[in-house]
Amino acid sequence: MTRKEISQAVISRLPRYFRYLGELKDQGITRISSQELSDIMKVTASQIRQDFNNFGGFGQQGYGYNVEYLYDEIGKILGLGKEHTLIIIGAGHLGQALSGYNNFFNRGFIFKGAFDLNPDLHGKKIRDIEIRPVEEIEKFVRDNKIEIAVLAIPKDQAVPMADKLVACGIKAIWNFAHVDLELPDYVQVENVHLSDSLMKLSYSIERYEKAHNLK
Amino acid sequence: MTRKEISQAVISRLPRYFRYLGELKDQGITRISSQELSDIMKVTASQIRQDFNNFGGFGQQGYGYNVEYLYDEIGKILGLGKEHTLIIIGAGHLGQALSGYNNFFNRGFIFKGAFDLNPDLHGKKIRDIEIRPVEEIEKFVRDNKIEIAVLAIPKDQAVPMADKLVACGIKAIWNFAHVDLELPDYVQVENVHLSDSLMKLSYSIERYEKAHNLK
Repeated sequence: MTRKEISQAVISRLPRYFRYLGELKDQGITRISSQELSDIMKVTASQIRQDFNNFGGFGQQGYGYNVEYLYDEIGKILGLGKEHTLIIIGAGHLGQALSGYNNFFNRGFIFKGAFDLNPDLHGKKIRDIEIRPVEEIEKFVRDNKIEIAVLAIPKDQAVPMADKLVACGIKAIWNFAHVDLELPDYVQVENVHLSDSLMKLSYSIERYEKAHNLK
Repeated sequence: MTRKEISQAVISRLPRYFRYLGELKDQGITRISSQELSDIMKVTASQIRQDFNNFGGFGQQGYGYNVEYLYDEIGKILGLGKEHTLIIIGAGHLGQALSGYNNFFNRGFIFKGAFDLNPDLHGKKIRDIEIRPVEEIEKFVRDNKIEIAVLAIPKDQAVPMADKLVACGIKAIWNFAHVDLELPDYVQVENVHLSDSLMKLSYSIERYEKAHNLK
């Protein structure tokens, strides 16, 4: 390992720092103190310093951090400095929504191919990208050196599809199927369970009402 | 407060416990030891016991937990025992994908209304629900006692829309717009940033390649 292991909690906060710094940058703000960053992010200043110390601290000097430098450095840590090729498997509403998701393109995620089981969709296009039969995935991934596959397919199709993708050399899977994929450690995976956040919302409603004797 | 404050980390794990217990239940498994649960969930048995102790421990006896009881109890904690009425604002691909999201209905989230700015969509239907003009939202929320609004609209529309929803008595917002909403504490909010998980995936690719000198 070329750097020490960073905790999942810290990693989970990095995209959020990146987003907020991007907004500051867009507003033309060039420097920010850890206290100001703390106020915006709703994270303690001490937490911010601890998080940043995992990566060498980003040289806070004088009255604060250089916003653009910090944004760029966190972007590099997140691997956003380089291009990542990506295909979407499942061209239904979710797949189509993800293909157009904000900032896909200007952060280096290049949408190269779309695939669906449904023959009625073959030849149709999502954002100028033709929808192809799933049988063509393996050749396409190899020929186009695809790094990331987005799975927007049902749960029962996701496991065999992931195995196929691993076999043809995919580096990472962004999985929206309702199952936690277990893959070899050389394939990175993010399992996104949208229903989990809906359940957390439901929990918050319940807790608030209990605490205030509303029900 | 009628119960002690539970940490966000514990709350974040509850939907995952609920999902896995649901799968065990579907497989006809009636009892499970904390060690077996630990193996499936990839969380230590001690972590599981600590998590459950926040809620009284769920009476592990003999060789383990009663799966159905545990599933039901965690469901109740998550507020899934009761019906929650829900509208979707933004009837594009994301809104449509969310309207059909797995398990919306059998877990008590009742999709009641859909709204969009685009007049071409008005009168069309998503899952038998007519798409209406956004001007009708306030009356609709009041008349139908809507609890949850799903925001599948662009960032710049999300803040004024959320303010409007708060004013007409919404209890919770499931927010997919690319902005963290700040709302009064009596309105619950889950901000879902899909791009954050894509950045975490990108981070994992980067870290793996650095660690293995692949680039």
